Amino acid sequence: MAGSVFGEILKISTWGESHGAAVGAVIDGCPSGLDINEEYVQGFLNRRRPGQSAFTTQRSETDAVNIMSGVYEGTTLGTPISMMVYNQSQISKDYSDLENVYRPGHADYGFQVKYGIRDHRGGGRSSGRETIGRVMGGAVAEKILDRFGVTFTSYVSKIGNIEIDRSRFDKDEIMRNSLYMPDCIAAAEAEAYLKDLIEKKDSSGAEVECIVSGLAPGIGETVFDKLDARIAGAVMSIGGVKAVEIGDGCAVSAAVGSVNNDKFRMVDGKVTKETNHSGGILGGMSDGSDIIVRVSFKPTPSIYQKQNTVNRDGENTEIEIHGRHDPIIAPRAVVVVESMIALVIADLYMLNSVSRMDRLENIYKK
Amino acid sequence: MAGSVFGEILKISTWGESHGAAVGAVIDGCPSGLDINEEYVQGFLNRRRPGQSAFTTQRSETDAVNIMSGVYEGTTLGTPISMMVYNQSQISKDYSDLENVYRPGHADYGFQVKYGIRDHRGGGRSSGRETIGRVMGGAVAEKILDRFGVTFTSYVSKIGNIEIDRSRFDKDEIMRNSLYMPDCIAAAEAEAYLKDLIEKKDSSGAEVECIVSGLAPGIGETVFDKLDARIAGAVMSIGGVKAVEIGDGCAVSAAVGSVNNDKFRMVDGKVTKETNHSGGILGGMSDGSDIIVRVSFKPTPSIYQKQNTVNRDGENTEIEIHGRHDPIIAPRAVVVVESMIALVIADLYMLNSVSRMDRLENIYKK
Amino acid sequence: MAGSVFGEILKISTWGESHGAAVGAVIDGCPSGLDINEEYVQGFLNRRRPGQSAFTTQRSETDAVNIMSGVYEGTTLGTPISMMVYNQSQISKDYSDLENVYRPGHADYGFQVKYGIRDHRGGGRSSGRETIGRVMGGAVAEKILDRFGVTFTSYVSKIGNIEIDRSRFDKDEIMRNSLYMPDCIAAAEAEAYLKDLIEKKDSSGAEVECIVSGLAPGIGETVFDKLDARIAGAVMSIGGVKAVEIGDGCAVSAAVGSVNNDKFRMVDGKVTKETNHSGGILGGMSDGSDIIVRVSFKPTPSIYQKQNTVNRDGENTEIEIHGRHDPIIAPRAVVVVESMIALVIADLYMLNSVSRMDRLENIYKK
Amino acid sequence: MAGSVFGEILKISTWGESHGAAVGAVIDGCPSGLDINEEYVQGFLNRRRPGQSAFTTQRSETDAVNIMSGVYEGTTLGTPISMMVYNQSQISKDYSDLENVYRPGHADYGFQVKYGIRDHRGGGRSSGRETIGRVMGGAVAEKILDRFGVTFTSYVSKIGNIEIDRSRFDKDEIMRNSLYMPDCIAAAEAEAYLKDLIEKKDSSGAEVECIVSGLAPGIGETVFDKLDARIAGAVMSIGGVKAVEIGDGCAVSAAVGSVNNDKFRMVDGKVTKETNHSGGILGGMSDGSDIIVRVSFKPTPSIYQKQNTVNRDGENTEIEIHGRHDPIIAPRAVVVVESMIALVIADLYMLNSVSRMDRLENIYKK
Repeated sequence: MAGSVFGEILKISTWGESHGAAVGAVIDGCPSGLDINEEYVQGFLNRRRPGQSAFTTQRSETDAVNIMSGVYEGTTLGTPISMMVYNQSQISKDYSDLENVYRPGHADYGFQVKYGIRDHRGGGRSSGRETIGRVMGGAVAEKILDRFGVTFTSYVSKIGNIEIDRSRFDKDEIMRNSLYMPDCIAAAEAEAYLKDLIEKKDSSGAEVECIVSGLAPGIGETVFDKLDARIAGAVMSIGGVKAVEIGDGCAVSAAVGSVNNDKFRMVDGKVTKETNHSGGILGGMSDGSDIIVRVSFKPTPSIYQKQNTVNRDGENTEIEIHGRHDPIIAPRAVVVVESMIALVIADLYMLNSVSRMDRLENIYKK
Repeated sequence: MAGSVFGEILKISTWGESHGAAVGAVIDGCPSGLDINEEYVQGFLNRRRPGQSAFTTQRSETDAVNIMSGVYEGTTLGTPISMMVYNQSQISKDYSDLENVYRPGHADYGFQVKYGIRDHRGGGRSSGRETIGRVMGGAVAEKILDRFGVTFTSYVSKIGNIEIDRSRFDKDEIMRNSLYMPDCIAAAEAEAYLKDLIEKKDSSGAEVECIVSGLAPGIGETVFDKLDARIAGAVMSIGGVKAVEIGDGCAVSAAVGSVNNDKFRMVDGKVTKETNHSGGILGGMSDGSDIIVRVSFKPTPSIYQKQNTVNRDGENTEIEIHGRHDPIIAPRAVVVVESMIALVIADLYMLNSVSRMDRLENIYKK
Repeated sequence: MAGSVFGEILKISTWGESHGAAVGAVIDGCPSGLDINEEYVQGFLNRRRPGQSAFTTQRSETDAVNIMSGVYEGTTLGTPISMMVYNQSQISKDYSDLENVYRPGHADYGFQVKYGIRDHRGGGRSSGRETIGRVMGGAVAEKILDRFGVTFTSYVSKIGNIEIDRSRFDKDEIMRNSLYMPDCIAAAEAEAYLKDLIEKKDSSGAEVECIVSGLAPGIGETVFDKLDARIAGAVMSIGGVKAVEIGDGCAVSAAVGSVNNDKFRMVDGKVTKETNHSGGILGGMSDGSDIIVRVSFKPTPSIYQKQNTVNRDGENTEIEIHGRHDPIIAPRAVVVVESMIALVIADLYMLNSVSRMDRLENIYKK
Repeated sequence: MAGSVFGEILKISTWGESHGAAVGAVIDGCPSGLDINEEYVQGFLNRRRPGQSAFTTQRSETDAVNIMSGVYEGTTLGTPISMMVYNQSQISKDYSDLENVYRPGHADYGFQVKYGIRDHRGGGRSSGRETIGRVMGGAVAEKILDRFGVTFTSYVSKIGNIEIDRSRFDKDEIMRNSLYMPDCIAAAEAEAYLKDLIEKKDSSGAEVECIVSGLAPGIGETVFDKLDARIAGAVMSIGGVKAVEIGDGCAVSAAVGSVNNDKFRMVDGKVTKETNHSGGILGGMSDGSDIIVRVSFKPTPSIYQKQNTVNRDGENTEIEIHGRHDPIIAPRAVVVVESMIALVIADLYMLNSVSRMDRLENIYKK
């Protein structure tokens, strides 16, 4: 309960410091009978791997996943799936001057006060490498959801003030540009903006969107474990996230009910909605339309400018961060956002299975 | 685990349908030795009570709290605190025509699919009356936090396009106007806007802010149980919430790191920050400055206009909602937002107590 | 997490002090579509009600259950089921002389040290009345299990040195004698033994057995949430229990593997076992044969003899307990043991539903 | 929630199949500031290592622990401690004839029904190697408890009908004989008994005792999370355990209250008890005297005799188990029992820290 365990039925425990031996995850509660292998999980990890463009850190980590348990001859056993990635390319000396100084925008100060000790190298447990465990879990969760026909589309929707033009939305474009934007023109503008910021030793915020399609209605528990509540908690737990919106999000405060209410209509014998302001969630449960989640990431706090700060001895000082840092968090975080949402939805799908006695009876009648 | 239990150490279970016998909450894990009585809790419940102005439903519920256990001669025992409020003024016939029809913007459809049965009267479990249990819990949580010097300021910051002017911010004004706004001019404008909407049988969205002061640094666990993650999940679980922002929130996507990073400075021997873009949370832990949470509520979905919808038999139909409904959710929800945040912070304060061995040892040395 | 919440999917929160306003339970996670009403639950509570014979306390509590939520027109909604029983017949003055003295064999001392305060009247939270909430939960759990064909036979198997003769086992006899023994001759002997102890102002220990029939194989999760582990924890949590045995229990320490191993045999196309030393549980999962649980209760600690003890001021003193106390715990605890086992099995049935992907898929294909 | 996660604040997730790549554990919630290294943990693992005598399997596993995270320069960080042991000496072919047959006394049948798939090699997840993760957790838990002055004495107290003579109890003897018995004469008799059983291709049950000294009073939560309840659930979850007793255990059913009640007495200004029938636990909380736990292990189910059984196709057949198997579970399980009890007590110590508001306040005043 120090915070590294997540989920109710599909439960993930992640572990690992940035510059320790390895980082990993244990996923308990994954059903038996799923096809999972290292190649499949690696596909997810590659989406967050550094070193792929000018906009991600130049560390050449391969982040090769090792499945240690829970899978036998390519099929899940129903037992805990343990996975890990060895930490490579650790240049700890880059961090030696940070041992006693609190980096602005980072967790250093909180960690020191909370624990009285911290592994200062690369942020330790609060490093971005912590998200490798999340993505391992996301890979497993998406494998489960795939069997229910649930699919994900995730991308960067805004960088600085450059937003994608939704009339140009092209899903295939997402994987073609280094910024994971579904609009090549916005991507090109954003690249120019980022190059300029790099020169200024600065960094940029951004927005990530995740669209989940194919959910059955009724997924999500009432009151505290609502689908949107669980998603918001999951996504806000990713480093750098400062806002989570569902559907129209913040815009609803200026809306009126007659417009914001999505009217139901039968289409081809199916309950549908004329609009989707709700972002696919009503009363905390999926309503059968696309789930829309929007996430705001703050600019990377590690910038190369000299900054005011204090040290562990309570003295004012200055800091100049070196090392290798992305000028923007969002592109590599796209798969992390998707993974957290997948973990939540898979968990809630499993929980929803036991909400009705007639369903439960059917299971044991077979 | 159907979703009505919340918290790790300070654990609350809420229960009750809108038109059942009562609604209530059981709070387990509250420390012994706190002064709590019905008058104190009633003060919190009164902040969400209907019937107080033109902008809340005209039902005249007194919502008088009964403490059933866990308190002996005005002091908490450390055992579960059970509280309840009897449901009064139930006019169930108002709802009889809703039995087979799904109200747009409501949980009806999801409930029917999920459970195959629902108490359609007044929304049943998904009614706003469900929040009474949350406020009972919030009252207990704030009593705990008061002992740590933590205080709350909560209010409506925006209705439609009418925002408070922060230069006119007046904390005392919050309880003086019926909309709980800290700016009497904005409140007057918003009242006019709402009156107009009522005439048009429409409703408005709004924004609520909660500022939490006095937190020790280091509150919040790493990775999944971060302070902001837990707050986002807690607040998003309130009916009608579509967005949660911490600090600068959505605005961070357009920010640059050199500005967004709050620089640390020693002031009077204390670690402080030159700015508070982070909203008091860094790396998921409190950083010693004010916690700033902003919440967007959608417009009340129950409006008196005729709306397209479908019924349980899968037929297109129209619905005209009667009964008594607020034209805006936010004013009565201010105390609910505050309560959920208080529950989270109290829980994380208790968890933080056991994060260091030296602290633990001290407890048992006494 | 102060200990009054139990279960994973089927989750129960109990509350209430012996001499407070009421005692109750909230059951969250019960599937929708079950027939439950107050008469049904009352049948369970009546099995633990005092005042029915010479061997139970003469307090004439009716313990009438009130269902406050979660049931609509006799059917569960899938929402939390809140139930309570008002405390009657409270003669608190009986306890006034116990305020500062620790009763031997009771929780008084631990409570005082742990919380620094306690409701000394009738044991407060550690009273036997606390088990009312457990039985409410058991009633709900058995209703679920009934739909899976699972049935319970529970009884007192031993009082002092008087054991039932298994060749005379008569299920119908259980409800005919005041000691809930399935052997009328043993019951008569035990009654004589207890009458003698009452005269001597003493009390007796006893043993309760619970046989659960009809379980599907495979119920119980691996490693920590094994069926036997969960049962042992659940049953040991009942006041006065000092031992829990599964199948042959303690006797296995003297057994050899060639005998203790239950050999599998196909009978009528079904996997069966030639013997049932395992008590229906292998590797923590049900094996298709009867689950056998044996529980040892200590003698009632409240006896009318003068006893040495200490008081809150740390002085040696003597205590003479008055009031109304059963000379034996077990008969009224039979339904409590059964209830705890039912809660565990129902929870694990629900969890087992999501252990295989093929099962999960089938649910959503419908 | 498939059962491999344990604990509330001190939370352990174990993973690994017998013949997979490795077995391990992740411990979350361990306080910062403890001295832990691989040598320390190895000392615990060595107590359960096979190949040390005639009475343990001849597999020569070294079971060398690797600490992967959570410890920095020999001190715990407060972050998850990940540990693992690579599986060596895997002779999977020994098990190939078991693929389709259910071993009597084993989990094979339940696993197959539950998951529809299993790793049959060496029991897979239900192998005794699963306990390595428990012992890793126990090592961490004992390190925490050591700081509170809590110590453990664990040993085999009975094998077959050979019990230790308590007048000969010698703590130092425990580590001197291969059976971990505190009485060298009983150990010699038991060795002869076991040798005889080995020749007969049979196996023996046994009893393990664990005495925990130095607990503060008041440890354990009320109702469901009582100290004895948590211990019983924890210990019963170990493979082969069929009974758990606290204090006088099963014997209490034949006792009378006047004797069974431990009378309190002040000794040297401390609350003590004249006897310890309660085994150190009253009302589910520690009472300041020694905690006494007694555990009954069934005989090893893997015996070399031909046994009746059935196969996966539902046919009667015979089985003859080969491979390397201990003729008795208990000696190597002593440290496992101790570890599970340590995990429970450490968790409850941490929970008890937040039971009183005055204690909580003191933490944050510093």
